[in-house]
Amino acid sequence: MKSYQELSKEELLSLKAELEKAYAEKKEKGLKLDMSRGKPSVAQLDMGMDIFDVLNSQSDMTSMEGVDVRNYGVLDGLTEAKHMMADIMGVQAENVIVYGNASLNVMYDAVSSAMTHGVMGCRPWCKLDRVKFLCPVPGYDRHFSITKHFGIEMVMIPMTPQGPDMDMVERYVETDASVKGIWCVPKYSNPQGYTYSDETVRRFANLKPAAKDFRIFWDNAYAVHHLYDEEERQDKLLEILSECEKAGNPDMVYEFASTSKISFSGAGVAAIASSKANLECIRKTLTIQTIGYDKINQLRHVRYFKDFEGIKAHMRKHAALMRPKFQAVLETLERELDGTGIGEWTNPNGGYFISFQSMEGCAKAIVAKCKEAGVTLTGAGATYPYGMDPKDSNIRIAPTYPTPEELAAATDIFVLCVKLVSIEKLLVQVWGIAA
Amino acid sequence: MKSYQELSKEELLSLKAELEKAYAEKKEKGLKLDMSRGKPSVAQLDMGMDIFDVLNSQSDMTSMEGVDVRNYGVLDGLTEAKHMMADIMGVQAENVIVYGNASLNVMYDAVSSAMTHGVMGCRPWCKLDRVKFLCPVPGYDRHFSITKHFGIEMVMIPMTPQGPDMDMVERYVETDASVKGIWCVPKYSNPQGYTYSDETVRRFANLKPAAKDFRIFWDNAYAVHHLYDEEERQDKLLEILSECEKAGNPDMVYEFASTSKISFSGAGVAAIASSKANLECIRKTLTIQTIGYDKINQLRHVRYFKDFEGIKAHMRKHAALMRPKFQAVLETLERELDGTGIGEWTNPNGGYFISFQSMEGCAKAIVAKCKEAGVTLTGAGATYPYGMDPKDSNIRIAPTYPTPEELAAATDIFVLCVKLVSIEKLLVQVWGIAA
Repeated sequence: MKSYQELSKEELLSLKAELEKAYAEKKEKGLKLDMSRGKPSVAQLDMGMDIFDVLNSQSDMTSMEGVDVRNYGVLDGLTEAKHMMADIMGVQAENVIVYGNASLNVMYDAVSSAMTHGVMGCRPWCKLDRVKFLCPVPGYDRHFSITKHFGIEMVMIPMTPQGPDMDMVERYVETDASVKGIWCVPKYSNPQGYTYSDETVRRFANLKPAAKDFRIFWDNAYAVHHLYDEEERQDKLLEILSECEKAGNPDMVYEFASTSKISFSGAGVAAIASSKANLECIRKTLTIQTIGYDKINQLRHVRYFKDFEGIKAHMRKHAALMRPKFQAVLETLERELDGTGIGEWTNPNGGYFISFQSMEGCAKAIVAKCKEAGVTLTGAGATYPYGMDPKDSNIRIAPTYPTPEELAAATDIFVLCVKLVSIEKLLVQVWGIAA
Repeated sequence: MKSYQELSKEELLSLKAELEKAYAEKKEKGLKLDMSRGKPSVAQLDMGMDIFDVLNSQSDMTSMEGVDVRNYGVLDGLTEAKHMMADIMGVQAENVIVYGNASLNVMYDAVSSAMTHGVMGCRPWCKLDRVKFLCPVPGYDRHFSITKHFGIEMVMIPMTPQGPDMDMVERYVETDASVKGIWCVPKYSNPQGYTYSDETVRRFANLKPAAKDFRIFWDNAYAVHHLYDEEERQDKLLEILSECEKAGNPDMVYEFASTSKISFSGAGVAAIASSKANLECIRKTLTIQTIGYDKINQLRHVRYFKDFEGIKAHMRKHAALMRPKFQAVLETLERELDGTGIGEWTNPNGGYFISFQSMEGCAKAIVAKCKEAGVTLTGAGATYPYGMDPKDSNIRIAPTYPTPEELAAATDIFVLCVKLVSIEKLLVQVWGIAA
């Protein structure tokens, strides 16, 4: 396809007229399509329904260590649940604490407790003049919401297909003691679907932080969320806890995971993995904070999935459902936008998102135009701290919830909007014609 | 029985010798009995097992409002779960937010968020020089642990059978702006089993706090936990939210409840009830903190209990199991200690505890002596802030977990220890004879 930048004024104007007609027709259909949030589809959820037959009124409710899971006791998770979550993260069970239903809550608690009580004996962050977090961008909006909520300054770090710009990360972490953390989604990142390279992970592990209480917030949300069954199309992430230990930085990472997108969103099991010293510190707060998390749900999960093979088999079923969805979006993007120079997008091997990069200054207008025609996308800017994408260019596409047919229809509208908004931009920028 | 204070030195010494022999015999048996924590018994838990047949792989997983409970969405609880929790607290569903599995965590979060972000626009507590909480004593150790954790000063308020000493409460709350909260277990209080009188509740509702952000932390943990089926033996608690509204103090209360001792401990459903303005403020934080709580477990509870009648019927079954346990303890206390003047105890109509008041300076020694003979009690002092009972006199007895037979055996040892420690005390105090 010809690059839009090479089109003449007349070509652009005639293309615009044509597209406007197509857009008006689409709009008339009054569609209601949602590509905004990374939600599992109904079919995906249906696949896990057997989990509710695992425990019934006749079940033995005793854990492998003889704990009656219906009663009080066991603060940091059933041993078998620790093993399950450890397998997902590729760590040792002794490095795991199992929580309630949402890893986001675990991250929130980690930041909140660092604010009020500090990390491992260090000064509470609320007592410091400045606290900063590094935020690889584009990234996950809910991470940024947590740091914003606590008044933590956010420093943007550009993402690359190998992970965050490590030169910048090193410079900040190693010279600025007010830098206390970095938000990472190291595997199938939100929104690009990038996986950090081995070199990136090793450079993380070998950081020499200026702040003793600097922690990497390693949100391994998509650890087993491959889209393809072939080994060579499955990203591999180096295990960071052991890398940190090797590098003499055993306490530098909090790793988070959950089964929210394995079993059920909001009714799964979350966990943290970290060094023994960190876990000891976390347990001290946990003891005050709760009487313990839902052990029955932990047992239900363990008995259903049985082992890591069970989880992987389950995720292959999810992938079979999700592949055609990603493909529906990608095919339309390729067919309609390849070579136009008005957009770039990722083609991930896993995770829940495709990241789209429009021409500068177009993302907000594209999202608004989609909305007008009944297609809801994640708000433009959401993938940046404070909701502000400095280039107004990134759009997160979440293809998991709708059907492939709905996605094809939604992506048709999306590319129409990308074209229209880009043409308007070019007419103004190159030809000086205001919309 | 003759009061021990009236016994002669010789009588005391001979009684002591006799009791020491009995104690040695008991000790030899090597019993292991636990009356330390308010845990439901296995039989109680067994009664709720049918709840696991309510949801199976064929179940409709849609809430009354058409929400797929397996997916993301619904931050503050299913409507039907709000109704269930509202009924337990006697409030309106619109005043309720449903949480995860532990009301303790909800209380912790309420204090934590007040520390870092303040209450409804007021200055965050962590920015203040002093923050104080009133603590009716004896009270619940885990309440005191939370305030201690956050460095909040605790002021002891004596309990009476009608509730906390309201003259003192009024004086503190109305004159000292650093008093930001009070811990209350208003019904079947922990550990005495007292229920606040209507007058006490009204005086609470009519407080004129010096601090705009003063809140009553109303932990209604035992709202439906009667021991007796007869109406006249069921304590009634005036509903405080509406009393506060009537008094022009609509925002003054956070009320907490859970099904931890209705369904399962650690796998139930927790909730907060408060004014709309407070809930609005809480929701703003919740939106950052979590993607929502376990809606599947909420649905499971609602479908199992059906309505408030279902909950009451279930609690009558619990009561039938618990009555003989309380009676086993009370009978032994009455038989062995009535009239001796060396101990007083409560005889509650509900809740999970009996509160025992020894002679001054004897509680720690009694608990230690029990332990030596294989009977574990809640640590003496635990019912006071910082674990320090100024009179060293209160002992919390938790009769719910052991069988009636075990309780009879444990209470036998307990009264032996009370007698022995009291005699030793009297010998020193009255007769100048050191042990």
